[in-house]
Amino acid sequence: MKHYKGYLIDLDGTMYRGKERIVEAVEFVKEIAKKDIPYLFVTNNSSKRCDQVAETLVSMGIPATEQHVFTTSIATANYIAEENKDASIYVIGEEGLQTALKEKGFTFRDEDVDYVVIGIDREITYEKLAKACLAVRNGAKLISTNGDIAIPTERGLMPGNGSLTSVISVSTEVKPVFIGKPESIIVDQALEVIGTPREQTVMVGDNYNTDIMAGMNASMDTIMVHTGVTSKEQLKTYEKQPTFSITSLEEWKFL
Amino acid sequence: MKHYKGYLIDLDGTMYRGKERIVEAVEFVKEIAKKDIPYLFVTNNSSKRCDQVAETLVSMGIPATEQHVFTTSIATANYIAEENKDASIYVIGEEGLQTALKEKGFTFRDEDVDYVVIGIDREITYEKLAKACLAVRNGAKLISTNGDIAIPTERGLMPGNGSLTSVISVSTEVKPVFIGKPESIIVDQALEVIGTPREQTVMVGDNYNTDIMAGMNASMDTIMVHTGVTSKEQLKTYEKQPTFSITSLEEWKFL
Repeated sequence: MKHYKGYLIDLDGTMYRGKERIVEAVEFVKEIAKKDIPYLFVTNNSSKRCDQVAETLVSMGIPATEQHVFTTSIATANYIAEENKDASIYVIGEEGLQTALKEKGFTFRDEDVDYVVIGIDREITYEKLAKACLAVRNGAKLISTNGDIAIPTERGLMPGNGSLTSVISVSTEVKPVFIGKPESIIVDQALEVIGTPREQTVMVGDNYNTDIMAGMNASMDTIMVHTGVTSKEQLKTYEKQPTFSITSLEEWKFL
Repeated sequence: MKHYKGYLIDLDGTMYRGKERIVEAVEFVKEIAKKDIPYLFVTNNSSKRCDQVAETLVSMGIPATEQHVFTTSIATANYIAEENKDASIYVIGEEGLQTALKEKGFTFRDEDVDYVVIGIDREITYEKLAKACLAVRNGAKLISTNGDIAIPTERGLMPGNGSLTSVISVSTEVKPVFIGKPESIIVDQALEVIGTPREQTVMVGDNYNTDIMAGMNASMDTIMVHTGVTSKEQLKTYEKQPTFSITSLEEWKFL
């Protein structure tokens, strides 16, 4: 184990499973907070605002403020603002994404737009998808908050935003820009927010294909914790291994 | 040109464009009917019942009865009935598909099913897609009426059933069985219905990637007509050419 000056931490499968918190993870974050080490929760979930995510974390006993949360909705809004701060956007998505884009002052409309942005939308309709396809065919750039194919819920694995995005990409034959993990886009931005050096910051997560790959793609150290998606057995099948792999965050020793 | 004993004819782009009939195509079918040559309209559109399609054709002055129409919904119902006549099905789709499956006497339910069947559904919801994904993950076989990525409309190219299907296939990582053109499944069934020998029957259509490929995949002769999707210039880019290629069906000479 190694001393890190900053921690980027995944949420679902790492801090909690559905509505159930992971006790060892709560203690892990408390310890980080006690030691005054900067930490930032980095999530592919675009549906909630940062303050709503922080509220959920606090309700589970996890020390968190709005400033400790970095969602792919924020990363998406930042990404577009850097390209074109006066962008017009057609957006499909829930409150977290809508709010993040609104706060940047973009113009929202249904057609003749610079960007089509899609995040998970459980009120998806054919008309929403049709507008997105027409706009992309008319030249709008397609941005997707994340490529997650499935979302774990009490009912089982539900369609993720990556699968909804495929309606637009398959229909228009235009590849989206994905912002969330495993892309380095979201991680690079998170590193700017946390403010610690890349080589002294570590990415913590339970999903090899999103969290760990994101860390690797951003040339960071990674801690894989087996409390969620990727099992120890599955991890063995991957060629490139995380910096550390532990059964539970309880095992992590702060040096 | 060649004498054929039977004609399989595409609809959209071949007989009409949207609500506008193609006059030369109407005359073409009238001539076939006058000569008592068997013909069958073969369509990837799963949304309408055969009698509804026939009614539209008649309203355009095209000689057609319900028996002259073969939809991918009928082909889908036949395909499942051959595999398992007592199948239980979760279905996403419009009236044409719902009716075709009902008429085979299958059991409809939301979970614990043998098949998930998807056709174009302009009332698609997240919940419908979620149920489909959960059922496929529980072992249901995924059948899609067709892989069309886009539907031409007055508004432009709208999402086709192939793009809606991708939500389920991307999320579950299960490949669907596609029934419609360019698959030979629908053409093989259509040949049984029309009752003329394969080598003396021809497939007529405007779309290289669906109609013409379907004919080729079914080892049939093909007539490509440039009144719809595929232009003469585009056709040149394909290695395997149709048996005949004509600007309009007016050019076709009955020998």
